Formats: sequence, C-alpha cells, structure tokens
Amino acid sequence: MKEKELKKLMNSLSWPEKIGQLIQLSGDFFHSEALAVGPKQKLGITQEIVDRVGSVLNVTGAETTRVIQEKYLAKSRHKIPLLFMADIIYGYRTIFPIPLGLGATWNPELVKKAYKVTASEARSAGAHVTFAPMVDLVRDARWGRCLESTGEDPVLNADFSKAMVEGFQQEKDGTIEGIASCVKHFAAYGAGEAGKEYANVDMSERRLRQDYLSGYKAAVDAGCEMVMTAFNTYDGIPATGSEFLLKEILREEWGFEGVIISDYAAIQELIAHGVAKNDREASLMAINATTDIDMKTSCYAKQLEPLIKDQEINPQLVNEAVWRVLKLKNKLGLFEDPYRGATVENEKLMLLTEKNRELSRQVASESIVLLQNKDNILPLAPNKQKILLVGPYGDKQDLIGLWAVHGKTSDVVSLKSSLEKEIVEEHFHFEQGCDMLENYDFLGEFGATKEQIASIAMSGDAKKEFLKKALAAGEKADVIIFAMGEHTMQSGEAGSRTDITLPTIQKEFIKEMVTLGKKNILISFSGRPLVYTDEIKQMDAILQAWFPGTEGGNALAEILLGKVNPSGRLSLGFPYHVGQLPMYYSEFKTGRPLTSSTHKGRFVSKYLDCPNNPLFPFGYGLSYSEIEYSELALSTDIMTEKLTVSITIKNTSSIPCLETVQLYLQDVVGSVVRPVKELKKYKKVLLAAKAEQTISFTLTKEDLYYYTRSMDFNVESGEFLVFVGPNSEETLESRFELKL
Amino acid sequence: MKEKELKKLMNSLSWPEKIGQLIQLSGDFFHSEALAVGPKQKLGITQEIVDRVGSVLNVTGAETTRVIQEKYLAKSRHKIPLLFMADIIYGYRTIFPIPLGLGATWNPELVKKAYKVTASEARSAGAHVTFAPMVDLVRDARWGRCLESTGEDPVLNADFSKAMVEGFQQEKDGTIEGIASCVKHFAAYGAGEAGKEYANVDMSERRLRQDYLSGYKAAVDAGCEMVMTAFNTYDGIPATGSEFLLKEILREEWGFEGVIISDYAAIQELIAHGVAKNDREASLMAINATTDIDMKTSCYAKQLEPLIKDQEINPQLVNEAVWRVLKLKNKLGLFEDPYRGATVENEKLMLLTEKNRELSRQVASESIVLLQNKDNILPLAPNKQKILLVGPYGDKQDLIGLWAVHGKTSDVVSLKSSLEKEIVEEHFHFEQGCDMLENYDFLGEFGATKEQIASIAMSGDAKKEFLKKALAAGEKADVIIFAMGEHTMQSGEAGSRTDITLPTIQKEFIKEMVTLGKKNILISFSGRPLVYTDEIKQMDAILQAWFPGTEGGNALAEILLGKVNPSGRLSLGFPYHVGQLPMYYSEFKTGRPLTSSTHKGRFVSKYLDCPNNPLFPFGYGLSYSEIEYSELALSTDIMTEKLTVSITIKNTSSIPCLETVQLYLQDVVGSVVRPVKELKKYKKVLLAAKAEQTISFTLTKEDLYYYTRSMDFNVESGEFLVFVGPNSEETLESRFELKL
Repeated sequence: MKEKELKKLMNSLSWPEKIGQLIQLSGDFFHSEALAVGPKQKLGITQEIVDRVGSVLNVTGAETTRVIQEKYLAKSRHKIPLLFMADIIYGYRTIFPIPLGLGATWNPELVKKAYKVTASEARSAGAHVTFAPMVDLVRDARWGRCLESTGEDPVLNADFSKAMVEGFQQEKDGTIEGIASCVKHFAAYGAGEAGKEYANVDMSERRLRQDYLSGYKAAVDAGCEMVMTAFNTYDGIPATGSEFLLKEILREEWGFEGVIISDYAAIQELIAHGVAKNDREASLMAINATTDIDMKTSCYAKQLEPLIKDQEINPQLVNEAVWRVLKLKNKLGLFEDPYRGATVENEKLMLLTEKNRELSRQVASESIVLLQNKDNILPLAPNKQKILLVGPYGDKQDLIGLWAVHGKTSDVVSLKSSLEKEIVEEHFHFEQGCDMLENYDFLGEFGATKEQIASIAMSGDAKKEFLKKALAAGEKADVIIFAMGEHTMQSGEAGSRTDITLPTIQKEFIKEMVTLGKKNILISFSGRPLVYTDEIKQMDAILQAWFPGTEGGNALAEILLGKVNPSGRLSLGFPYHVGQLPMYYSEFKTGRPLTSSTHKGRFVSKYLDCPNNPLFPFGYGLSYSEIEYSELALSTDIMTEKLTVSITIKNTSSIPCLETVQLYLQDVVGSVVRPVKELKKYKKVLLAAKAEQTISFTLTKEDLYYYTRSMDFNVESGEFLVFVGPNSEETLESRFELKL
Repeated sequence: MKEKELKKLMNSLSWPEKIGQLIQLSGDFFHSEALAVGPKQKLGITQEIVDRVGSVLNVTGAETTRVIQEKYLAKSRHKIPLLFMADIIYGYRTIFPIPLGLGATWNPELVKKAYKVTASEARSAGAHVTFAPMVDLVRDARWGRCLESTGEDPVLNADFSKAMVEGFQQEKDGTIEGIASCVKHFAAYGAGEAGKEYANVDMSERRLRQDYLSGYKAAVDAGCEMVMTAFNTYDGIPATGSEFLLKEILREEWGFEGVIISDYAAIQELIAHGVAKNDREASLMAINATTDIDMKTSCYAKQLEPLIKDQEINPQLVNEAVWRVLKLKNKLGLFEDPYRGATVENEKLMLLTEKNRELSRQVASESIVLLQNKDNILPLAPNKQKILLVGPYGDKQDLIGLWAVHGKTSDVVSLKSSLEKEIVEEHFHFEQGCDMLENYDFLGEFGATKEQIASIAMSGDAKKEFLKKALAAGEKADVIIFAMGEHTMQSGEAGSRTDITLPTIQKEFIKEMVTLGKKNILISFSGRPLVYTDEIKQMDAILQAWFPGTEGGNALAEILLGKVNPSGRLSLGFPYHVGQLPMYYSEFKTGRPLTSSTHKGRFVSKYLDCPNNPLFPFGYGLSYSEIEYSELALSTDIMTEKLTVSITIKNTSSIPCLETVQLYLQDVVGSVVRPVKELKKYKKVLLAAKAEQTISFTLTKEDLYYYTRSMDFNVESGEFLVFVGPNSEETLESRFELKL
C-alpha cells in the first residue's frame, strides 16, 4: 500500500480502532469465542476489543495463524491484518545453540546465516515479527537469562546484534524478506542487582552509554523494526515508562522510527513498581514515553480513550504510535498478503530440512568451547579406547534450552545416539549413572503436580543401582565421558541462581567415578557459565556444550572424535567462585592494581581467598592444534588517522583449525578512568596444518572514541597499549601514541 | 591565635613553606636524620622538605609526639606546630567493638560516650586528629572493610556519624576539647564492585545522593573538621581528583570549609588509575579538586611549586588549602600549646582506666547480637550444667579486630578467663579442639616469613589430638560453647573474601562435635556478616560477637550467664549465601514482587535456589525476654505537616530488656521507584519485667523527603505505609496519606 493510502486508512479509523492497533493479546483470545471467555474475563477485556487488536502474541503455525487472520479480517471493518509476533530466539523449529553459545562462535557471519534460516522457517509458519535478538550485555552468571545473551562485551554484542537483525529481516530495497526483528530489552536488563531476575538496575549514565547500549544501537542502525522495553528500572524509572530511555535516547538521539512494544505486562507492572497508582497512570506514563504497543494487559485498551477525552494526553502521541504500527504492517506487505505466503504445504517444506540441520550442526560445532585438554586426551581414538558415556545428559534430547519455544526435543540428536553411530559396539557403553537433580520441586513453577514431580526423581534404590552399574562399567573403560549440566529449567528467564556449580548430586557422582582413575572428560550442558573449580582437577578434558540445539549430539560427537576441531571462545568469563560476580575482563583500572601497584602484599585490589581473574577468561578456548603468536607489529607508533596492527600466527600442529585472533586496546591515560583492556577487533581464520599466516587489523581513530569526562563521545590524544592474542589474558603487547 | 595574626603568619610564608603545610609524612621520616634516610630515599624527599611538612601520620604516644614536635619546632622559622593524625577508629588503647558491632547497638548516644573516651585517651597520647569515623555505607559482606562501617542504612549511618564526630571533637564555643575528626572515605567507598577492595564504584547520582552520602553529610553538619577522600573511582573519576565530589558537593553544596586529605598515597595513585600521566598531572587534578593534604607521597612536595610557577594552577587554590590547614591548627590551640597538654604522666592516668574498661564492656554488651536461641538454651545455668568451651577463640585475646592500631591484645579479657571467674571449676572445661585456619599463608602479606607461617599452623598430629580431647571432654558436658570465627586478618582493609562462611577447618570440627548430641552454642567472632546457613541447623544458640574489644570476654560471659540481656540488632543483614550479595533490606520495588505479583510460579523476582531475604535481616536480634507488639496507631490518617505513630510493647517475660522499636516507611507511589521499606525512626527502650509501654514516634513531612524524578530533594503527596516492629521483617502495618 502506498503511504498516501495508508494515511487515508489511518484517518478513517475511530479512536477505538486506532487504539486497537496498540494492543497485543495472546493466542488464547483468538480461539473460538466460547473458549476465549476465560482469558477475557481474567483481563477484563470484551470481544469487541479482541476484534480490533492489532497483534497476536506467540501464536505460530501456518494453519493456526491463517485461521485466526481469516476470521479476524472477516469481522474487520477496515481489513487491517493482524501482526503475528512470537519468541523466536535461537531457531524456530531447527534449534541452534543458545545465544551464549552463539556468542562463543565469535562468528557473526555464521550466526547471520542461522538467523536467516530461522526467519525462513518462521515466516513459513506464519510469524511476522520475532522478539529477538536479545542483546542485553551481561556480566553476572547468576542471571539465568544470560542464556539469551551473547555475553559481556560491547563490541562482540554489537556485531552479533547486527548480524542477527540482518539475518532475520533480510531487508532489500525497503522490503523485509524474512521477518521483522524486535531487539530487546531496552535497556540494561542484563545488569540486575546481584543477578536476581527483574531486579533493579543502577548504573551511571557513563556506563550505560559506554557499555550497555551498544547492542541495541547496532540493531537500530541495522534497521531493526521494533524495540522491546525492559522489565527493569533504570535511574528510578522502569524502562517501559522511561522518557529518558525511550524518547530521548532511542527516538531523539538514535532516530528510531519503528515500533516500541512493552515486555509482557510491563505497562501494568508500573503499578507494582510504584510509579503509577493505577492502570490509567500506567498507560499515561507508557504512552508519554512512546511505548507503542501494550503487550498482554488491558491498560491501553481501557485507558487511552478516556485519557484522550479528558485531554490528559496529546492525541498526537497516540496517532504517532498507530502510524508506526500501520507502517510496519505495510512494510511487511500484510495489506497485499496478510499471510505473507505462509501455507501448510510450504511450512512442511521449510521446517527442519536437512540443510537447516546441517547449518545447526555447524553452528553448534563452532559454539562448543574446549576448556581443558590435559595431555591431548581429546580427540578420542575410538578404535583403540573403550569409551564409557555416563551422566544425565548422555541419552537426553533436552538439549535446546529453556527458550526454544517452537523447537521439539524429539527432533534432537542425543549424544548417545550420535556416538553409537560412530563407535563400534564393543568400544562404547552408556550408563546414566546418576540423576539430573536431587530435587525437582521447582518444576511446580510450570504447573507440575506434586505427584508428577515425585515421579521424576529417582528413588534411593535406583540411585544406588545406577551408581553401581556405572562404577562397574567404568572399571572396564579407558575413558569416561561425563555428560553433566544444569537442568533446562535452571537457566533462562527467572532462572537466577546463587549457586552456579554443577548440581550436587552430579558432583557427588563425579567424585565416586573419578576414584576409578580413568581418563575423564566432562561435557557440560548449561545456560550460563558454571563454576568448574573442582572439575578442573578431576577432569582431563572439559567441553562446554551450552544447550547446543537440535544437532547437539552430532556436533559433540564430531568434536570428541576429532572430525571437527573445536573453535569456540568464551564470550562471558567463567568464575572461580560465585563470590566474584559480577565480573568482566574490561574492568576499570584501580589505583592499586594486583600486579603493578607500588604497594606490596595485602593492600592491593584483590580477594584474600580467590584470584581476581576468572577461571576461564573472556575470549578463551582451546583447539586440538597448537598456535604460536609472534611478531606483533604496528605500521607506525604514532597514529593520526589510522594504523595497521599485524601479527603472525603459526599452526605448529598437523591439525587444521579455526583460530580467533583478538585485538584489545588500553587507553593509558584518559580524562576518566578507562578499562584495563577492551576488545576492538577480532578475526576468525582458517589455518591449515603447519601453516603460518600474518593477520592484519586496521585501527582507526574511531576505534578509540569513548565517553570522555564531559560525556562527549570523543577521542583524546595519548598513549595506547595494543594487546593481540588468542584470548583476553594471553597476549603480546605493543604501544602507540595517538596525535590529533 | 587571632585570625588576623594567623593571616599575617600565613602571608609571611614562602611558597615552599606554604606547600609544606599540605604534606603529610609518616613517623619514620621523623626519627633521627640518619634513620630517616631510607624512607626519604624511597619517596625521593629531602630533609628540607621534611623540616617543613605540616602533619605526621600515625605517630602517637605522648613521649614520641612531644619529641618530634619539639625537634621540629626548634628548626622551624615560623614555629607552626605539626599536626599529629592517626587511625583511631574504635578506641585508642581501650578498644571498643568494631564499628559494625557499634552499629548493632542501635545506640548512638552510647557510642558517642565511647568516642569521647577514645578522644580523651588519644589526646593524652598526643594525637590531634583521628581518621574516623568511617561512615561508608556497605551492602556487601564480601568487602572486608565493612568491619569499619556501621552498616547498610542511611539513617542509622548518619546518626552514628554525628554521634562519633561529636564524641571525638566535643566542640564547645568553637574550641575542640577532644580531637579533630576526619570523616571518611568520601565518597561511596563501600560500594566497590563485587565486594573487591579498591574496586571501581559505579552508581547513579540518584543512589549516591539518596543513600550513600548521608553519613558524610551528617558528619559535616556535626562540624567535622576534616574529610578524607576515598580510594575508589566514582563516575569515572577517582574520588581524590573528583571536582564533582569534593568541590561541587562537599564544598559548594554542603559548605564544607575544613581540610580535605587524600587517603594513603591516593594522589599519586591517580597515575595507576590512568587519569594522570605523572606526579605533576596527579597533583594538578587533586589540588583542582580542593584536596588540601597529600598523604604520604611526594606529589605536592615536588609539583605544586612548579605548577604555580608555570601558571598551571591558580595560586589562590594553594593559599586556600594552606589557610584551611592553619585554621585547623589554630582551632586546636596548637599555637598556644603544641602538645595540647599531652604529657607522659597524664597519658598514664588516662589510658585504659577501669571506667574506660567499664564503658567498653557496656558497649560490647549492647553490640553482641543473639541470632538464635532454641528452647531458650541461653542464658546458661552454670551450677546446673557442665559447660565445655571449645574453639580457636575460646582462649584468645585477639578480640580487637584488624584496625585497633593502638590497642594491645594483652589488655584483652579472653572468654575463657572470664568464664573461669564465673563458673566453678567442676562445671567448666576448655579444650581448643581445632585450629583457627587450615592455611596461614596470607599472613605473608604482613611480612611473616614462611617459617613463621609454618610454625603457626597445627601439625596433623596435633589436630587429631586436639579433636580427640575435645570429643572426650564433650562426652562429659551438657553444653558445648563453640568460640569460632574469622581470623583477624580475614577482614578489615584489603580483607575481601568470596567465601564468607566460617573457615572450613572450623566447620569440620563443628560437624564432628555436634554428633555428640549435646546442647550447642556458637559464639562467632568476625569483622563481617558470615553465612550461617549450616550452623542454624547445628546450633541451639548463636551469638554474633563481632570483634568485641578489650572487654569482649567479660561482655560475652555476662550474656552467656544471664547477667546481661542481649540487645544488639543487626545493622547489616546476614545472607543465606554469598551469591545473594550485594543485598539490602531497602531494595527497590520490582514489577514482579515475589509475594504479591500478578504472576505466579516462576516468573517473579527471585532466585531458584535461595530465598530473596537474608538469613538474618537488618534490625534483627533476639533477647532473653518475650516482647509483644500491638496497637499500632496513627494520630491521623491524613498528614499535612506531621503525625504521631504509637505502638504498645509488652514484656511478657520476667526478664528486663532493652528493646529497639523500629519504624519503617514505604512511599507507595513515587515519581521514581521507591524502596520497599526505609528505616525512619527507632528507639531503644528499657522495658522492665512484665512491663508494658507505649512508644511514640513523630513523623514530619521532612521524613518523607527524597530525590524525586527531577532530582530535587522534595516531598510528594500520596499514600505511605508505616511498619513498626522489632526488625525490618516482622512488623505491624498501617497507612496514611500525605496531603500537601
């Protein structure tokens, strides 16, 4: 539809019809009218309102969306199609690794492909908008939702954000060929105090701008159509009602003209936050902040019209919000085809194709991080070694994590099934050995009954029997692979934990098994960094598998058996102890640094009982190859506009690998305190056996910009240190001076 | 000296002489010139500079200070006496409980008396200024220096700050009868990230003003003569160079006209922080921020004069700084008597008098917190029960904590010696039972050699023997008292820990001993809140003893035996798990509160594996009495200017007690998110056996002021909840409306 026609359409709408565009309800409202009575009563919403809402939450599937759209349009005066929005976070039906794993690929281009595939699957299933990417910078592994983030670094987060938005939207000449992307959660949701879900966020504006906004900004710059507000408070104002965040930064500074949607019920939650007395005040606050769509409450539905009538809001605000929603619908081509080509037949062709599975496997391969590999115990030699697989994740298809809403565990390749294919029977054996958890009570949170919960946990007898069998099998094995980890429900939204070690029951099992004195390999599945301070002593090798997705078993088997050389690198450091959190490699310089202070002994910045640095740092990950870094060179030691940094990397082994070369900078003296190190550039390169390669990075003046004392985003003359290496701690160092 | 004369004196000084007043050196520079060569070489300072410095760090004792002063003045052209400044934090020779224990008294008036005594001792020993109080608000028990703070609450901190300053200074008609007070560390030093010492502090200005500044402000308002800068960075600028903190807030807003001193070497540390290239830039930044005295570096000594000469600083800045120092010297009467009456004879009379000991015992009594008392196991009946005392603190005089710099452990009454006096021999036995720590390596930080460290730790055989004897003695006992805790060196400055449980070796010992099935009482000595999640199950009673000071043993014995009824209340909550930190009772309201959210089950603000609240909350503490709270009443439910809140408390037991009645408010709807609860008023009252009393609090409009959305300190109409009770969690509730 041409903009002129769209404007005409908009002008023909009544206030109730306009406001309808600003309301989003979940699928249960769109079942047959009889079935929808419950949800409507709960929210206090009439069928009349349902008949004019603008968008639907978390309904997908070509058949269902078509039926809902058809019925809706049949009743609609103006025939404005519904927008179907859904949580499609790291895959639709073909599930990729969780975003924390995607971050570990250090390969935004690859992730872009994954999101393109996701968009094609989702579009075929009738979805128009995805509530992704989530780009909340996170530096606290206690927060369960670090699962959905690519990690702790502003540069890496921004790169992934851009790649994900472009992958989803595939915008060409103003047309979205994929699905619209909704970046979230604006802003700083990942910084909740003490890692607790929905907790307050308090930080300086300096930190907000310097570190936390980059991911959202990258999405907006990449043309992201929508932005979702965060649940958290920032500087005393919940994000959903924050004029500073939404109006000043997002709209005015960044020029964002797309649709802002509240997170689930977040407008009404302004009341619980204590910044609004009632629905009316909550609505006023949200619309004044330019929050366009009210997700899943009756606030806008019931309050906007009286607020306009009573002249408490400028009607122009509502008109602008409606216009943004209509423009998005138009851009998606919904007026031409309200189904965007989604048909049951096409959907079948598109979902979970072999090609999609293949890509999922490749992404999983690059996401898995080899954390330890004593004496090159990995890769395994399956025909020479007797291999025992144990642990609750050994034969499990639950490898897709908490927020793969449309994925199916039945699609997933388990580790056992994959290894069975690869290793001859007499060299491979599986015993579960132990239960996942001691206690499953928290499943009640998702509605499990006491009886159901009780039926999941192993009996005491079964535990003993399982252990006995595992020990017996272990006696006969050369190598024991432990497939351990968090329960899926222990991470993800509202999955905050104060203890981030492996579950106690699994730790006890490991303790028993390692007494056998065999070679031990830990494969750990988790939605967050875990503490492996005990396990690094017990295990010869540790593979961080995350929740690796549909092809997780295959990807892991390939790595275990050396068909794939692991290349993942952590995008969020793993602590020694939960008491180190929050933690990040790019911490500010202190006046009394641990290693270089003029003070000696006690009075330096540290803990008495724990190192300062993480157990496994940002950027860290091993491969089966040996890589030497040498000859760090700068094209000049005085920079005016730009300079080139080069380094030689040599694969001294006979195993080809993907090596991620990382460049960090330190601004030695700033007008404000600067981080000890900041990632600026990285390259993931293929290095053949015995090959040597020189890698170059161009640093420009723009790479040195930061928020100076006066809060200008600017650059200052002075000395810079350059660090290049395979991770944030093992680097070669050089220096240059910037002369402006 | 009259101000006019002082001005004349100042005008007669050369620049080097003026700048001398802005330099502080430690005692080693004032030994015989031959001995002082080392320190001077280290700092690169000449004897000429030493001869004109203005103040001396951490030298006390009437004899020493007299000798140094005399020698100094003999060489001095203008006869401006030296200022002697020292760390006199919670007692001079008579040591009181650590400030975290003082906070637990909830009795600022009593603490004022303690600081008055401290001032009289210190003055007799030649000290002129104390680097106290430390009023850094702290919400993270990982930080070792929470030892020196009165806790997590702005109101309580401010009250103690005022009491301490008044107790120290005893200002009458412009004359300081005690010693000058230097409040520290300005600002927000207690909020270091992840509880790590000297770490960055990042927070919104809103939080800074709302919570973190109150203690410093109260000190300044109470006439505190000096302010010490903090080591930490705030909003990118280290406090020592922060014009925002020092010039804008402290000088301009608060009108502080006293002396600002850097913390130890903090001016030079601006270089390590990366905001100054060299000493010259560091000096420039500090003097521009109005930091008057450079503690313990050669920055000001060498850089100020060239900076003036090169016209890089306005000489007026230096003149103002010098003037402030001279004014302080004059106010202390140093021109009239450079010794302020300190003589060796007088010092002997003043230190550690019986009266001072008596006060120390009383303060310790009120600081000790009874955390648990199952079946009223306490107080003990010494003639009826056989009592065994075990644990590394049972016979130890190390009860004064890390920062009682001038205290002597040999003055301290140990628990064993005190109990021995009170209990007949056949009913009391002591066995140490276990070592304090498994590993003493960290003592190397204070210069202990490997041999010395090795000699401290028990041998394996000794450990077994000690345990055996303790178990055997335990068999014969009815009650076992465990005197456990942190090593003195595990808290205090640079004593950050990630694990804040009792030391493992002690936990293992407890595990063995409780198998005996006797009545178990834990007395825990620590400089911070510890995690007692295991101990609440193992122990019948728990007494938090802090480091109770010189009279610690007596105070504890009196409580154990029921001669004193414990009355301490926590001023910093004790967590279930270190993973809950930072934590504070006055947290912001969330949109999804744990108990009252419209969401059920998982999606509320919480941890999966730990409660939200602390194990022992702010304000919590038991006594041997039973107190009933009832009849919470408000004089009106509409407040315009003020109202009265009254509550009836009844001692239903026959034991008199000190009960601390606490009043909290919640601002239901604010222009920004407000805390769930904030302490506004409290009263510690004596309640006789079986007595009933009505306690009244007057709330005025001023109590409802806060930093509103526009950052005005203001008050807004609306509803308020009132909570009154014995701690921050168990309260009666009422409400009123403020109508402006």
